[in-house]
Amino acid sequence: MRIAVLGTGVVGRTLAAGLADLGHDVTVGTRDPGETLARAEEALTAWRADHEPIALATFAEAAGDAELVVNATNGAATLDVLEQVGEGLDGKVLLDVANPLDFSRGFPPTLFVKDTDSLAEQVQAAHPGARVVKTLNTVTADLMVHPGTLAEPTTVFVSGDDADAKAVVTGLLHELGHGDVLDLGGLSTARGTEMYLALWVRAMGALGTPLFNIRVVR
Amino acid sequence: MRIAVLGTGVVGRTLAAGLADLGHDVTVGTRDPGETLARAEEALTAWRADHEPIALATFAEAAGDAELVVNATNGAATLDVLEQVGEGLDGKVLLDVANPLDFSRGFPPTLFVKDTDSLAEQVQAAHPGARVVKTLNTVTADLMVHPGTLAEPTTVFVSGDDADAKAVVTGLLHELGHGDVLDLGGLSTARGTEMYLALWVRAMGALGTPLFNIRVVR
Repeated sequence: MRIAVLGTGVVGRTLAAGLADLGHDVTVGTRDPGETLARAEEALTAWRADHEPIALATFAEAAGDAELVVNATNGAATLDVLEQVGEGLDGKVLLDVANPLDFSRGFPPTLFVKDTDSLAEQVQAAHPGARVVKTLNTVTADLMVHPGTLAEPTTVFVSGDDADAKAVVTGLLHELGHGDVLDLGGLSTARGTEMYLALWVRAMGALGTPLFNIRVVR
Repeated sequence: MRIAVLGTGVVGRTLAAGLADLGHDVTVGTRDPGETLARAEEALTAWRADHEPIALATFAEAAGDAELVVNATNGAATLDVLEQVGEGLDGKVLLDVANPLDFSRGFPPTLFVKDTDSLAEQVQAAHPGARVVKTLNTVTADLMVHPGTLAEPTTVFVSGDDADAKAVVTGLLHELGHGDVLDLGGLSTARGTEMYLALWVRAMGALGTPLFNIRVVR
């Protein structure tokens, strides 16, 4: 599948590499590809050396050519970045992994949208032609693509209003090794997984590692 | 241990019965014991018939005689009920299982406190002499006392500022069969477990049952 991963942070780089490893045709979208390449950012340089086949393009170019677009931007930047893509999202499956984290009060972060709305719904409202599916926002980047490194199988969630888009995303999740995918229902259920971050950050603090996930047990 | 369970709803009744079954000396606190006994409420009558040794008293009487007080009242009523107990909570371990659910917009509920504060912290602020420990608010009543009915062991959380009180509560959780108790830290970490309810209600909807819990997997 032709996949655009928007965002060159650790989440974008990890997802792009993991999806390319599965054989997908991955382009990473960034604000200014020339600037991104020129930037002397160690992590990005090392990552580029390891993943030469992954192309770099503007957000709009990357998304425009893709069948599926991954929003791996910082939650606070998400709406601004997606506005640069605009109609290029129409009809596309938009896999949204961003969280509405607000670090302005320090750590732990609060959420800049919650309870009666979610970042996923804000994205959908701004891009009614996109087929938004919220998923993977409940795990750290490495576990998005390597869930098998945990001691036991764990659960990830999908939320979305488009059943076909959820099926495409669920297929991709299975490819990545996520055996237990719980469909929570419509996109508004993303309020649940985004608000779970409040527990996630505190569990991370208690465990001393972001390398954990939850398993839903019946 | 002499335990007061405040609240005669399903959570209070289930916890009182579960703790009495373990051999604890349990009194259930209610606003007006005479009125509660006279009330022709089927569930309560059946429960009383099954659990005669559990005494019924006013909130203040029940808490005043107890070593440990369980807040099993409706979250919206919690501060009002605890105000009736007042200084009777001083020095007591206060095991708080209530959630700040607001059903005024229907289902799913929103939270009337979140993100920068929690119900547990509001209780602590109103009763600085109490030793508040938040726990068990992430599972349905039956699983609070019968966690072994699930297919696999699952995790419950404790949050509190008083280490000795957390140790007492953790001991009680072990007695109830909770093998995996994750200490999240100070009482403000209750924001995490209270906000998790937003995910819990949606997972309940997707699974079609409240009889589930999560296991934290490292």
